[in-house]
Amino acid sequence: MTTSAAQAGRVYLVGAGPGSAELLTLRAHALIGSATCLLHDDLVSAEVLSLACDQALVRNVGKRCGTKTITQEDINAWMIEYATAGHAVVRLKSGDPLLFGRAAEEIDALTGAGVPFEVTPGVSAGFAAAALAGAPLTGRITSSRLLFATRHLVAGQTSGLVGITPDANLVLYMPGRDYSAIQSELRGNGWPSGTLCLIASRLGTGAEQLVRCKLDGLAGVSPLPAPVLMVFLAVDVNGTQDFGNQLK
Amino acid sequence: MTTSAAQAGRVYLVGAGPGSAELLTLRAHALIGSATCLLHDDLVSAEVLSLACDQALVRNVGKRCGTKTITQEDINAWMIEYATAGHAVVRLKSGDPLLFGRAAEEIDALTGAGVPFEVTPGVSAGFAAAALAGAPLTGRITSSRLLFATRHLVAGQTSGLVGITPDANLVLYMPGRDYSAIQSELRGNGWPSGTLCLIASRLGTGAEQLVRCKLDGLAGVSPLPAPVLMVFLAVDVNGTQDFGNQLK
Repeated sequence: MTTSAAQAGRVYLVGAGPGSAELLTLRAHALIGSATCLLHDDLVSAEVLSLACDQALVRNVGKRCGTKTITQEDINAWMIEYATAGHAVVRLKSGDPLLFGRAAEEIDALTGAGVPFEVTPGVSAGFAAAALAGAPLTGRITSSRLLFATRHLVAGQTSGLVGITPDANLVLYMPGRDYSAIQSELRGNGWPSGTLCLIASRLGTGAEQLVRCKLDGLAGVSPLPAPVLMVFLAVDVNGTQDFGNQLK
Repeated sequence: MTTSAAQAGRVYLVGAGPGSAELLTLRAHALIGSATCLLHDDLVSAEVLSLACDQALVRNVGKRCGTKTITQEDINAWMIEYATAGHAVVRLKSGDPLLFGRAAEEIDALTGAGVPFEVTPGVSAGFAAAALAGAPLTGRITSSRLLFATRHLVAGQTSGLVGITPDANLVLYMPGRDYSAIQSELRGNGWPSGTLCLIASRLGTGAEQLVRCKLDGLAGVSPLPAPVLMVFLAVDVNGTQDFGNQLK
């Protein structure tokens, strides 16, 4: 396998995957190793960042930790500035860069500035959590559809889970620490008490944890260290509720 | 980066990604190269299969093409038989192995037979299509949720798209060739005529095609060669409908 190196004057929006460097794509691996400038989110793991070349300028542009003084406009401006100055810029986002990543703002800015860019997809953390659990995300027993959502509230909403019914299995990013509220909201939306829940914490780090429970036990689980995601496997009323074999 | 080789007596359910070998994970790449037996679906690309070692037993167990005489029970039996005989077995599925892949049946069978297995996630084709288009899958302008679904009909349904409303963006696998019906069904479910559609054909092959249109133009598009997937980006009524910058 050969894959081309990052080129000067371009921006690469790259998915860093769920954390472990093993789950980078070959393309992402090559781009990270050949970039002269890396702008990365907080959630990108140290293992992945260690693949950057020694001479590269590596900058954490995460907005979550620290002083929170970095704005989206700052990130947009830096991408354009570094690329225009001749850097091969990798904009590294955990998981897939186009899912929950504010990619729209960055693509708008790059397009507006006439800076060429390309996108390299990545393994979103929901897939990694399911793989760790050996839990099919769609199937004969559970729903044949899969929804990716967050629990972030938007203006005018009193719940982040409005309209999320058990018609589709659910991967919930950024669920927050109020597991009791999630249980109540999903039960209120018609999810059965026996819905299977996976709670994955700090995936791809040495400290990853995976907890399995039924929906009616979720409120009793102590909140795990962030970042956390949850997977809910809705039981098909036409199927069996015996997941014994399906969830090893 | 080092990653361990496939071990004898085990089955690895591995995501082959959307087609291009560049979009394999490092883990998948190592497992494919070290397996002594590969059982793969039809959609796994020749480029990916070329990474198997020369001595490996490589078998197409796809059910789509050819004589259709291979059943799920056959595949389950072969996985168990080869692993029990001491092979390091890679069961290779396009995209992610836990999404629309009948993984539940295979995991049930392996667990029942006491054959150890592990799952390696992969990049699902929907992410690759969006990356190719430079189109954010969630965002400020479009929905903040993303649904993965197929258009396969199940018993008692007259449409494969029942209940799929524009509350979430949509990645539709196996849409079939009746684009007119998809347009009608989605319009009937409340999707605006200006919904952005991406139609991706034969991703990751030398013959890949990407067509963009609005939902009200979908019926006028000539069906593309399979495999095809479609992405629908629902316009947020609170947002602007100008995707000019967002979709390069």
